[in-house]
Order: sequence, then C-alpha cells, then structure tokens
Amino acid sequence: MSRLLVVGTVAYDSIETPFGKVDNVLGGSALHFTSAASFFTDVGIVATVGKDFDLNDISYLKERNVDMSGIRAEEGKTFRWEGRYGYDLNQAITLKTELNVIEKFKPVIPDTFKDAEFVFLANIDPELQTHVIGQIKRPLALVLDTMNFWIENKFQALMEVISKVDMLVINEAELREISKEHNLVKGARKIMEKGPQCIVAKRGEYGVLMVKGDEIFLCPAYPLEDVFDPTGAGDTFAGGFMGYLSNVGEVTSETIKQAIIMGSLMASFNVEDFSVNRLKGLGYDEIKERYHSFRKCVEFGDIKFR
Amino acid sequence: MSRLLVVGTVAYDSIETPFGKVDNVLGGSALHFTSAASFFTDVGIVATVGKDFDLNDISYLKERNVDMSGIRAEEGKTFRWEGRYGYDLNQAITLKTELNVIEKFKPVIPDTFKDAEFVFLANIDPELQTHVIGQIKRPLALVLDTMNFWIENKFQALMEVISKVDMLVINEAELREISKEHNLVKGARKIMEKGPQCIVAKRGEYGVLMVKGDEIFLCPAYPLEDVFDPTGAGDTFAGGFMGYLSNVGEVTSETIKQAIIMGSLMASFNVEDFSVNRLKGLGYDEIKERYHSFRKCVEFGDIKFR
Repeated sequence: MSRLLVVGTVAYDSIETPFGKVDNVLGGSALHFTSAASFFTDVGIVATVGKDFDLNDISYLKERNVDMSGIRAEEGKTFRWEGRYGYDLNQAITLKTELNVIEKFKPVIPDTFKDAEFVFLANIDPELQTHVIGQIKRPLALVLDTMNFWIENKFQALMEVISKVDMLVINEAELREISKEHNLVKGARKIMEKGPQCIVAKRGEYGVLMVKGDEIFLCPAYPLEDVFDPTGAGDTFAGGFMGYLSNVGEVTSETIKQAIIMGSLMASFNVEDFSVNRLKGLGYDEIKERYHSFRKCVEFGDIKFR
Repeated sequence: MSRLLVVGTVAYDSIETPFGKVDNVLGGSALHFTSAASFFTDVGIVATVGKDFDLNDISYLKERNVDMSGIRAEEGKTFRWEGRYGYDLNQAITLKTELNVIEKFKPVIPDTFKDAEFVFLANIDPELQTHVIGQIKRPLALVLDTMNFWIENKFQALMEVISKVDMLVINEAELREISKEHNLVKGARKIMEKGPQCIVAKRGEYGVLMVKGDEIFLCPAYPLEDVFDPTGAGDTFAGGFMGYLSNVGEVTSETIKQAIIMGSLMASFNVEDFSVNRLKGLGYDEIKERYHSFRKCVEFGDIKFR
C-alpha cells in the first residue's frame, strides 16, 4: 500500500537561466513532488508518459520505494515544457508547451493506490482532479494545486474540485486570482468558505503563509545565496509537505506547520540545481543539517518590555 | 540627555489610497520614526519645518518625552509630498514633491543631543548625513537609511557615509541597487565589506531579512487583513527598531533580532491608518498584545525526523 498518492505530470523540460541551459531533462509536477516526498514516506505516482520516456531515468525513485505502477506509457511523445528565467528568478517565461500524451490523459487510479491515506492532486485540469476523487477512498488529507490557466479557463470546474478538498497548496498570485482579494489572509478566508479547512500560499523567495481557521502561520524561505533554477520548487515544496504529513500520520495545526517547514527546506534544495538533480543525490543528513541551520535563522529570544 | 537621536524630515503629506484620501497630514521620516521610538526611549529630533508648521500638531510627542528643541522653523513652507497607491500597496506613485525649506536644510545638532547613545540618520542627502556624523560623539549604534534618488545621483557620497555607519536599514530594492546583486544575502555581504557590520533589509509585506557577519535572521511581517496606508512604514519600522535597542542599551545579535520584531510590529500599526494617526493613539498594551499574537504566527514545534 502506498501511503501517499500523487496524480500529476511527468515531463521533459528545456530550461534556460542566467546560470546555464539544459535540454530535455526530467521534470513535471509528479516527478518533482515524488523526488521530495520519497524521503519521508511510501509514494505512488499516477501519470502518463510517451513511448519515448525511459523509466531507467527515474530508477533513483525505485530505490526510495516509490511505486511506479501507475505511470502509463501511451502512444506518442512525453509532455514537454520549454522555459526561460531572467535574473529575477521569480517568474518563468514559457517558450513552448508540447502537451503530447497529456492531451488525452485520463488518470486511472490502480486499486492498490485507492486507499492512500494522503493524496496530492498536482496541477492538472480540474475536471480530471474531480475524476480522481471519484475513484479513491476518503484520505486523511486531500490536497490540491492548480494554475492560472485553469482559474482563467475552467473556473467553475476548479471551484467544484476546491469544494471537495481539505487543503489548497497554491501560489500567492493564484490565491489572489481565485479569491479576487489582494490581501492573502482575506483571500484565504474567502476560499475556506467554499470547503477547504486550510490554505497554504507559496510566496517563492519570501516563504509561505498558511491560514487554517483563525490560525495563521508564517514560514520564511531558507535564505540561499545561489538560486540556480526555480523550476519545480512549488511541487518540491508540496512533496516535502505531504511526505512529512504522511510520515507523521496525523493532520493537526502543529504537524501542518512542521510540514510547511519541511516543504520549504526541500524546495530550497531543489532550486540549487537543474531538474531533479539536487534531490536525486540528496542525503537525509543534509536535510537534518539544513533544518538546524534554518532554525538559527528564525529563532529569537523573548522581547523585553519595559 | 536624549538617548536616541534622529535626523530626518518633518512633512505635510497628501495621500490617496483605494481606501480614502487625506490632505496635508503629518508625515516625514523623522516624525514617523519618533512616533514609534518614543514608546521605548527618550528621543531627540533634528529637522526643519516652515513657518506654516504648527508645533501643537505634534504635542502628543511632548507627552512621550520627545525633545523637539532640534526642530528649527525657517522662512518658507514645510516640505510637502503628494502620493497615491493602487490596490497593490507596495509601491507609491509620487504625484508631487515640494522641497520648500528642505532645500536649504543643513542639520545642526544641539549640544544636548551630541552624546546620544543611538543615532538614526533617516533618508536625506548623504552629504548631510556625513555632516551630521562630524558633529556627534561616536554612539553605540549609528544607523543609516537612504533612497533610490541618492543611489542614482550621489553614489560616491552615499558610499562614503555607508563606510562610516554600523548598520543600514534599507528596502530590498535599495540593497539590490547599492550592491548590484540580485541576491539579498550576497548583496548584504558586499555592502558589509565597505564598513557596516549589519544590514537590515525591509521587504514590505514579506518582512525583514537581516545579515550580520555569518548570521542571518528572517522576520515575517505581522499578517494584517486591512492595510490602509503604507506611507511611513519603513521609518516606523526604524523607530521601533532603534527605540527598542536604545531601551535595552546594548547591541548584540540577540537584541538586534528582537529590535527587528519590535520594528516590524510598530510598522504593522502604522499602516492601519493614515499619517501617524494609529501611532498617536496607540497604547503600550496593544504593542504587547500584538507581540504575543505575532509569536503564535511564527512558532512551531520541533520537526520529527524518522
């Protein structure tokens, strides 16, 4: 049994940043997610690839006990994305998107995945996300991501799937766009009225803002001196976040906060190299070390009032 | 004796935000700074105003023991600034700047202020900031602010005054512009090579990043649902920051971190109303309360590693 199920994309990316350029490297939401989550729990992936995809390229995930039986190879080519970043690494310019096999993707959840305790619906068509929910047993936490394209083109379908999930893990810009509120806390409360109990807003280099009922949690991003390639940072965050929750096995305000920190740390590794390179070779000790270094950056003694 | 000296501007502001409009209200760096700092320590202001300025308007500062003998009324009108904000309150559009008496401002530090233990040089011409340093005894902490105008028009003079101070409290955009580094940590290290031991970078709604030697501190901004007018937030931050340090009386990594939190909390009050209105009526208990509420937003239990 896989404790954590992710449904998303596996892709080949071509990326240019001010620091280098790569062609046809591993990418896609499900792959970035799993590269992080597999450090903490047993993950099952559901995705589609083309006949050109070589499963040997992701054998490092097998070693981490990832169940890849849900990756189906279809006639055609694997999804491809081509993008570029300037020195302000916050925003990607999409140069080319080749949907390829993704165009006909209709996720089929293998029976062995249907009772996963934690489920992450990475960014795909919200109608497909609803289709996935119809196939699974109610998990401990059902968490959703999306993107501006669906907000702008399938808003009703998106709101329907949002009403069914426990949490949203989205960018601050997406939170603003969905809620039509500039203020993130207000926007989160507005979305929570539709169903979710918790909104996790990713703010890139500025960290994460979480709203859950009356609680707010603020997590700064780990301060890096060299950010190399931000592609996949959001999905890597989600992977660390869900992987941590799945390992702890319970969803409370306390574990959500800790999971946010873990997601944030995993994302900080991801951006240090292209593709999944950094996560591929990462050691568990490095995660512990970075956590201790993170704590030093946020701890402070109690204020002395006069 | 004033423990904390600030040299800056006193102004009349006209401001429009999506939430309202005010004309000729109290503003200026020294006034915003003092409105915050005076909660914690004895402040002396050095600034210039025109004959049109009514000192009765700032009598609330007298009640907080502020020494205003350094405010000189010159022939002419008080400095005026007119600005507007859109829903994204991060950036002001300057509609009009009337320098008036500021044009001939040449700060004269009264003898009673010369041995202040803490000195804040708010944003004015860097040559005048150097001129102030020439008049005072070496304080425990000499802290500088500036703005893009001086970076672009008096870079040499700015670098000269930077080389003489202990700390910089500036916006992240200014840090990038001075250091010519996109990465804030790298940029801070580059500026520290020129003299200052500590760089405090203000990131608006995203909080504060501090770099001091090998240490980094990250302080998220207090999460507000209603930001009304951001004018003066940076100076209010500096006022809470310096006021706290001055009250504690020593400058260590620990006290700097706490001072950053206090600055951040004071700024969170400032943006809740126009001008200095919120700080004028603020109670000390409200500050304590907000601090406890802030702690809840950033605290998290220790990560459980498997």
